[in-house]
Amino acid sequence: MRRFDNVAIKVYNQCIMKKYTEMTREEQQKEYDVLNQRYREVCESGIHLDMSRGKPSIEQLDLSRGLLDTLYGEANLNAEDGMDVRNYGGLLGIPEARRLMGDIMGGVHMEKVIACGNASLNIMYDCVSRAYSHGIMGNPPWCKVDHVKFLCPVPGYDRHFKISEFFGIEMVNIPMDDKGPDMDMVKDYVENDPTVKGIWCVPKYSNPQGTVYSDDVVRKFAALNPAAPDFRIFWDNAYCVHHLYADRNLQAEILDIIEECEKAGHPDMVYEFCSTSKISFAGSGLAAIATSLANIEDIRKGFSVQTIGYDKVNQLRHVRYFKDVDGVREKMMEHAAVLRPKFESVENALQAGLSGLDIGTWTKPRGGYFISFNSMDGCAKAIVSKCAVAGVKLTSAGATYPYGKDPRDRNIRIAPSFPTTEELRKATELFVLCVKLVSLEKVMGLI
Amino acid sequence: MRRFDNVAIKVYNQCIMKKYTEMTREEQQKEYDVLNQRYREVCESGIHLDMSRGKPSIEQLDLSRGLLDTLYGEANLNAEDGMDVRNYGGLLGIPEARRLMGDIMGGVHMEKVIACGNASLNIMYDCVSRAYSHGIMGNPPWCKVDHVKFLCPVPGYDRHFKISEFFGIEMVNIPMDDKGPDMDMVKDYVENDPTVKGIWCVPKYSNPQGTVYSDDVVRKFAALNPAAPDFRIFWDNAYCVHHLYADRNLQAEILDIIEECEKAGHPDMVYEFCSTSKISFAGSGLAAIATSLANIEDIRKGFSVQTIGYDKVNQLRHVRYFKDVDGVREKMMEHAAVLRPKFESVENALQAGLSGLDIGTWTKPRGGYFISFNSMDGCAKAIVSKCAVAGVKLTSAGATYPYGKDPRDRNIRIAPSFPTTEELRKATELFVLCVKLVSLEKVMGLI
Repeated sequence: MRRFDNVAIKVYNQCIMKKYTEMTREEQQKEYDVLNQRYREVCESGIHLDMSRGKPSIEQLDLSRGLLDTLYGEANLNAEDGMDVRNYGGLLGIPEARRLMGDIMGGVHMEKVIACGNASLNIMYDCVSRAYSHGIMGNPPWCKVDHVKFLCPVPGYDRHFKISEFFGIEMVNIPMDDKGPDMDMVKDYVENDPTVKGIWCVPKYSNPQGTVYSDDVVRKFAALNPAAPDFRIFWDNAYCVHHLYADRNLQAEILDIIEECEKAGHPDMVYEFCSTSKISFAGSGLAAIATSLANIEDIRKGFSVQTIGYDKVNQLRHVRYFKDVDGVREKMMEHAAVLRPKFESVENALQAGLSGLDIGTWTKPRGGYFISFNSMDGCAKAIVSKCAVAGVKLTSAGATYPYGKDPRDRNIRIAPSFPTTEELRKATELFVLCVKLVSLEKVMGLI
Repeated sequence: MRRFDNVAIKVYNQCIMKKYTEMTREEQQKEYDVLNQRYREVCESGIHLDMSRGKPSIEQLDLSRGLLDTLYGEANLNAEDGMDVRNYGGLLGIPEARRLMGDIMGGVHMEKVIACGNASLNIMYDCVSRAYSHGIMGNPPWCKVDHVKFLCPVPGYDRHFKISEFFGIEMVNIPMDDKGPDMDMVKDYVENDPTVKGIWCVPKYSNPQGTVYSDDVVRKFAALNPAAPDFRIFWDNAYCVHHLYADRNLQAEILDIIEECEKAGHPDMVYEFCSTSKISFAGSGLAAIATSLANIEDIRKGFSVQTIGYDKVNQLRHVRYFKDVDGVREKMMEHAAVLRPKFESVENALQAGLSGLDIGTWTKPRGGYFISFNSMDGCAKAIVSKCAVAGVKLTSAGATYPYGKDPRDRNIRIAPSFPTTEELRKATELFVLCVKLVSLEKVMGLI
């Protein structure tokens, strides 16, 4: 298995422009006037763009257009176990979909996989909701215990945090570096605080930084000895095959957390999630959960009350279309060909516009859907707001932190996937402009 | 609107055979030996059939085969509001799907409808689960109150009861007659007991009796003044267009509960559910909930945390395939043409084999998916068990009652839809045989 050393997740800060802090007040004012004039022009140009979510572009959706034709005139609508996919039944999904999703997650055995509906978020929500109302594997329901905490590596995925918040779960920020979460801190919390019941992880091409958890980090997760018997790692492997580069040496691989947890004697400690939302269709893909057989049985009991089964026709459609994980990998290279120029265009514009100014750092991910930008402290909200006034909606500043509270008000998630290249060029120019303006205002003491 | 007077839901008991109770012991023994011999022959014939669920037959699934071809080569994958159905977004469903599902429910305005995924059961579960964890419209979560009760008209749908049971909700049996539930009892509970938070209803072609709620019953529901502000009627309109007869005079219509609740000044009191599970594909249809705008907003808040949206591609597929509610009605007549002979075959066999014996009564529904059979008291479990030994799996005796406990052990749900006509003929012969045998054992004091 190839791994890479995260050198990509570095910051670009070569000195080629004069720093605002080194300018005289007069120079600052002059620069400010120039930038402001340009900002007004952009505002008047009537740009309208929503870059708030990691949405695939139409071009990407078109890559799987054939999925909708897959079952056309198809006479055999039986799964490989003989079940007619159109009818009721098959609570755990059809065998071939369980196998495909297991393979996408890096080779998890199909018995440990449930193939579900169109949203992995929904499975995560259900896992928390069921834990809240019924408890995990015989442990007390979280609604009946005094306090529940989740650890949240930050910055992270806002929708994870929203689930915790919805269920009144206290969230604890865990700092990230370029190898993953601070595992000393994770270990300390998980092993000593029985109210810590979970941790949200995006282990590969993390949202928003693009960080890939190192083998050491994954092994440290597997080796945790939780104080709470119902502690679970919520391992959202959302970008498991979502590389931006075709060169296998640039493609990250992570250790199989299911296998590592088994080896470490904690087979039940992890729920792993993935979906084809960014492989086939964002709104109409397949999601899956992988976990131990004991957890599968626990979940199955809930499912048997909750649903008549997930959409097996769409499961069959996906398997017939992609054939196997190699088919998925091929498709991901087509996505990469669309996405990579967009990422590089943003990175180049940031580099050209901001390098040397010491007013921002950003990641250069090799996969996933986001670029993570850190402004000077206390500037993120103002930057996002300035972009919005000009017509470009970014993810809310703070959204990458629990409760929407970025303690340093500096992290901004950039989602380059949806806009066209031309829109992206304009939007990034605007973004650079807003970063400069707000930073200058900060340096000049105007905000 | 046409209604019918439920004369169909009568019992067939003309005297043409000698009753077991009027036989001498010798005659009983002779009859018993003959029946037993025949039972052994059937056992040896190697019949294997699962009639436990109301599953559509393959022939019925094939009626909507074209659904899978609908989007073949389709260039326009936008909903009528311009949203690309393949992408994220559209939490309440695409407008045309909301309109279609509202029309299927009898003309509910699309603003009051959310189009969801493939299982109405899942929406019902979610409504109970959300009420349990978060409460309804600002009321205390049910997990934080001492006690919650649901009223359960009986016999009823086992999966409703399972949801209540899963959440520790106490269920109270409410007797049904041929106009619907005993509304005096319902009113007494709902208006005086603030722990009563819900009632499960299948108002049209009820599961399992085929009962159609009368206008008077529907109006009495709408006029309820609940003691609990978060009391909701769970109105599972599962068989809203599921007529067995083409003659409009034989097709039941019920009052629109949403409209009646509005008129009565209780707009928030009802959640109405429906699905296309028995219109298109059982495992891959559309489900919907209809309710007041205030409830929609309450539900939307939960949905926004729970999911990225339901499968809009399948929503579009359904709308493009069926076009409108007239297209659905046409399809339902094709279903009726397949189903009606099966229902009539069972009814005829019951009539031929059991009439006059005073050992069973059954319904003759004009729609829905079931025939409800009442044996002599204390015989249902034995009959179902005898059928199972011979190779025919029926719905468990008791399943039509909360906690699986039929107080008189007499109700059996017959699901004629899935077997072929020939299988059904054999299965019904076996059923009649088992009813006779067990009844005779009862009369003879053997059980």
